[in-house]
Parts: sequence; C-alpha cells; structure tokens
Amino acid sequence: MHSKGYIHVYTGNGKGKTTAALGLALRAAGAGKKIFIAQFVKGRIYSETEALKKYLPEIEIKQYGLETFIINSPTPEDIKAARKGLAEVSAIIEHGNYDVIILDEANIAIYFNMFTVEEFIDIIKKKKTGTEIIITGRNAPAELIELADLVTEMKEIKHYYTQGVLARKGIEY
Amino acid sequence: MHSKGYIHVYTGNGKGKTTAALGLALRAAGAGKKIFIAQFVKGRIYSETEALKKYLPEIEIKQYGLETFIINSPTPEDIKAARKGLAEVSAIIEHGNYDVIILDEANIAIYFNMFTVEEFIDIIKKKKTGTEIIITGRNAPAELIELADLVTEMKEIKHYYTQGVLARKGIEY
Repeated sequence: MHSKGYIHVYTGNGKGKTTAALGLALRAAGAGKKIFIAQFVKGRIYSETEALKKYLPEIEIKQYGLETFIINSPTPEDIKAARKGLAEVSAIIEHGNYDVIILDEANIAIYFNMFTVEEFIDIIKKKKTGTEIIITGRNAPAELIELADLVTEMKEIKHYYTQGVLARKGIEY
Repeated sequence: MHSKGYIHVYTGNGKGKTTAALGLALRAAGAGKKIFIAQFVKGRIYSETEALKKYLPEIEIKQYGLETFIINSPTPEDIKAARKGLAEVSAIIEHGNYDVIILDEANIAIYFNMFTVEEFIDIIKKKKTGTEIIITGRNAPAELIELADLVTEMKEIKHYYTQGVLARKGIEY
C-alpha cells in the first residue's frame, strides 16, 4: 500500500518520546524500511546508540550534540553542532533516500534557539512523498503541532524521579 | 548501579505506547539486559515481531492473543489465550530470570475482563528486586496507576486516522 508519508510529533513532559521513536524505527526496520535517525542536543553514547550499532547497523544514526549537557543555555559549540545537523538533515530530507527520518530532540534544539521553528519547518516541508518524519522532544512549538499530521503528548502522570530515582543505564539512557 | 526495578505504565489514547515499550527493549538490550515481551490480545505477526526475531533473537517474545481482533467482547478462545499468558507471565515474574518484562496491551486484557486487575496486581507484586516491569495499553485501571512507579499518558492531540489514513505496515503494525 502506498502512503504519502506523514509527520509525527511526540512531545510532553513524560517518559516515552525517544523510546517511541526508537520502537517505531525497530518496527519500520522489520518492514524493510530505510531509516535515518538524527539526535539533536545529545552527543553521548547511549544504550540505544550501542543497540542500534550492534543489532541494526543498517539504521543510520548521527548525533548533533556535544557530550556535555546543556544546563541553562547552549554554548556556541552546541549551536554549531545543532546547525551542522540541521544542514545535514535538510540535505537528507530533500534527497528522499530514507523512508523514515527521526529527528530526536529537535524540539529541544528549537526551544534553545539553536535554530528557529521557521527554518526547521521550511526543511520539513521539503519532505518527499512517502517519507515519514518523526520529531521528538518536549515543548514542541505550536507551529510544528499545526503542521504535523499526528501529535502525541506524553504526559507525566507519575514519575519515579520525584522519588529520588536517578536515570539508569538501559532504562533512561 | 543497582536498582530495585520499577513498574512503568504507558496508557492513554495516543500513538506511542507499544513503540515506547519496544524502544525501551531495544535500549535495554544495548545495555546487555535480558528481556521478555508478552503481547496480550495481539496474535498476528507484526513488523515489530519480525524485527525482534530478525535483529534481536535474544529478546524473548510471546503472543497471548488470537489472529482475529476483538470487536465488541472477547470470545472464550480469546480469554483462554489471555489466561494462558497470565499464568506464564506469573511464573516468569516469580522466577526473576529477566531484567525487563514488557506486558504489552495488558491493560486491554483487563479492560475486556479477560482477567481482573486484582489477579494482575497480585502477579506484578511477585516482582523480584531488580526487575523492571513495563505495562502498556489504553484504559489503565486506577489500581494499577496507584501501584506503578512511573505512569505516562500518551494523549492524542492530533491523529491522521481522523483524516482517513489507515494503519500502515511498518508504522502502525
């Protein structure tokens, strides 16, 4: 069945945004689709990056963030990395070589003004017929929600962080 | 770092519950964890089952549903399959052999009265220290939300189903 390809947004303050995108990548791989994952803001080796490299080397994954977390505002290096990512993603979307393109934490990059929502939307709009684009990160801008075909808000009802549980390898990262 | 292991619930009417659990399985596999996935209600071969068998054969996945979807109420065969699943999951949880146990669509099985929330909670409570249990499906019962350590509601803000888009292989299943 042919499909024009849609734009998904997974946002909200709850756990499950990046994992939903990863699960979708796994499912799409099972259906023989070609997948590209861009991780904005993130620059560390996570268990998911390890898993993809080990189990699904045919999924292309690139990180456009630094190893250090952004605390209050991004450094010039953070911005440079994000903008490099945006340029690469733009070329990839325009080229139309992938069935599924995941832009993990792109909302965060916009939130931190590493690029503007207008720049981002201009790039998303270059999407070829048949390409599915998945965008994650809290604080999705209204303009992007307007553009998207599917939006899920991952809403935190209860979180063990409030019980003092720290992020754990293999579960949170 | 040792962790006592927590109970997650992913519920709500939005897209991303099963995929979040799958993504978590992928991440946990990347961290060397041992994973068991039980799919209640579902009995078809999905792209995710294909993907797991192909790429991550070390993840154990079992389905406790029939090939036909439940329309209004489950048939005796549906109930039998779900109860067989519940018994197997109970033994697996008690045994404590897995680091991560995913009970996909268990909320739906409870919603359809295939087993009661009390039966289910009694089984979840047998969880060994260090086991992480992930429960998905819309309409999570209040008692389970109460018991869980982490609850995310996947809230549908916008869905392309309302535009007449049908479920697509590799994206929805």
